[in-house]
Amino acid sequence: MAKKRVVSGMRPTGKLHLGHYFGVLKNWLNLQEEYSPIFFVADWHALSTKYDEGLNLNQLSLELVKEWLAVGISPEKSLIFRQSDVKEHAELYLILNMITPISWLERNPTYKETLAQPEYKEKNNAGFLTYPVLQTADIILYDGEIVPIGEDQRPHLELAREIVRRFHFLFKREIFVEPQELLTETPRLPGVDGRKMSKSYNNAIYLDDTPEEIWNKVRRAVTDPQRIRKSDPGNPEVCIVYQYHKIVTPDEEREEIAQLCRQGKIGCVECKKRCASNIEKIVGTIRERKREISDEEVENLLSQGGERARELASKKMEEVNRLIFH
Amino acid sequence: MAKKRVVSGMRPTGKLHLGHYFGVLKNWLNLQEEYSPIFFVADWHALSTKYDEGLNLNQLSLELVKEWLAVGISPEKSLIFRQSDVKEHAELYLILNMITPISWLERNPTYKETLAQPEYKEKNNAGFLTYPVLQTADIILYDGEIVPIGEDQRPHLELAREIVRRFHFLFKREIFVEPQELLTETPRLPGVDGRKMSKSYNNAIYLDDTPEEIWNKVRRAVTDPQRIRKSDPGNPEVCIVYQYHKIVTPDEEREEIAQLCRQGKIGCVECKKRCASNIEKIVGTIRERKREISDEEVENLLSQGGERARELASKKMEEVNRLIFH
Repeated sequence: MAKKRVVSGMRPTGKLHLGHYFGVLKNWLNLQEEYSPIFFVADWHALSTKYDEGLNLNQLSLELVKEWLAVGISPEKSLIFRQSDVKEHAELYLILNMITPISWLERNPTYKETLAQPEYKEKNNAGFLTYPVLQTADIILYDGEIVPIGEDQRPHLELAREIVRRFHFLFKREIFVEPQELLTETPRLPGVDGRKMSKSYNNAIYLDDTPEEIWNKVRRAVTDPQRIRKSDPGNPEVCIVYQYHKIVTPDEEREEIAQLCRQGKIGCVECKKRCASNIEKIVGTIRERKREISDEEVENLLSQGGERARELASKKMEEVNRLIFH
Repeated sequence: MAKKRVVSGMRPTGKLHLGHYFGVLKNWLNLQEEYSPIFFVADWHALSTKYDEGLNLNQLSLELVKEWLAVGISPEKSLIFRQSDVKEHAELYLILNMITPISWLERNPTYKETLAQPEYKEKNNAGFLTYPVLQTADIILYDGEIVPIGEDQRPHLELAREIVRRFHFLFKREIFVEPQELLTETPRLPGVDGRKMSKSYNNAIYLDDTPEEIWNKVRRAVTDPQRIRKSDPGNPEVCIVYQYHKIVTPDEEREEIAQLCRQGKIGCVECKKRCASNIEKIVGTIRERKREISDEEVENLLSQGGERARELASKKMEEVNRLIFH
């Protein structure tokens, strides 16, 4: 039996951090073994809110793919390409726009929530309203059967299925696959200040941070505020550092640290040092691997991936165009 | 000095009639002598309101181009192609959507007026809201300097210029031309029942009507309602047939007919016969020329035109992409 087609994309808006690694990339690595995935750099999507930031999206795209490769995403197992290299995404987006009611887009919760934020108020553009239509095109162009998403993205996938069904109804033939979600439980990894890990909060540990950078960040991580002296018994459950331990530290060592903390027998500095060292075990490997990958290598890979993607996409668009223009 | 670039498109939604001939095509023929025009079949635009009518847009596109050729539009003087053959229109449309505020589109008078009509209420789709963005892409992709339009399309061209200026402002380089309108006074040619000439009113004389069809239509044209008998003096100014005479009948003959009518010396049947015969002089030539043009000929022409258009468009898109992704 053929492996199922998974489609997922990432916007090239900046360096990846531990939150991305444990929240998305580890999951991609699993998908890569079980399925036949398409992982694409969503550079057009990056424009939808970042068009005015003067980002060098070309370079950011290269860096992003380097990090994918460094964590183990493999062009032999996954089809990797850049969205803007495959014009068919724009073509299908245009066509799907023709049949997608404005009201469906306006009731997208993410759309409403984002516009409610002051910094996005000025960005109520047509491309932003219609980004779920572009997402739909991204998926159904490749007969994507499975899309790994978090809970918050459920409405987008429902919309994608609605658009597919409307297309089938209007043009009287079922040529697309209705994509299904694969809900992935992602450990919510906080930033060192306890807020969501994010570039904009300056609280993120990046996949290419040096040991010094890692230490300087973990060092200022928020611990149990009740614990003043080393001899005070600590509560690991309210400590950000312990949340990192849960993810980066082997079970046995972590249990030991937790017990010492509860007994007031390990100081926060030592605990943080062990945490930073375990983070470095992961980040170090990624960082070094990334360093070995040249721009040229990624450019070649994207060029080959783009070619394969265009083959698939143009075949699908032939089918679409036969249907809608006849 | 290089000739200025004119861009104009037509939706392939049905046969052309005398209203199109005198309102648009005669003007295109003039433009063809003075400028370097691009005339394209706007098949994607046809979808924006006609997606649910099961039109055979491929065949309609061929018929449309046959009629262009039959009236004298020449592929040696004008670049003729089909919009959906040049994916760059969709690509630029997507990019311009990213920077076009919804509010600009919502205040487009045509959008508001169309939605106010009951039959369009259900068609408030993203593609319909954003069709002026696609129009903008259609024009600026080719550095269109001049766009022949009627008064009612002025807001679209204003919007196109606004989008161009916003693009230049955001991406800090002026790579597009701000298109200017060429307002064309089009003789308002009524249908045989006095309403606007339109397929949906079944009152139109088509460019491929036979002499019998022409006669059967002109015959039932509305004349001066005050005139009952032939000997009653008629008033040509309130007569639909006379409006046709004004356009299709040589001055001298027309003056003569008007005078005879005012004196009650020519019957409506004879007047209509002379009108139908003069219409046939125009339509007959177009009809016969059209008959000589094969599907294959048009397909070849569109394929060559598409190739030339893609060359121009992809060059422009390289410039666009260098700017927005860097």
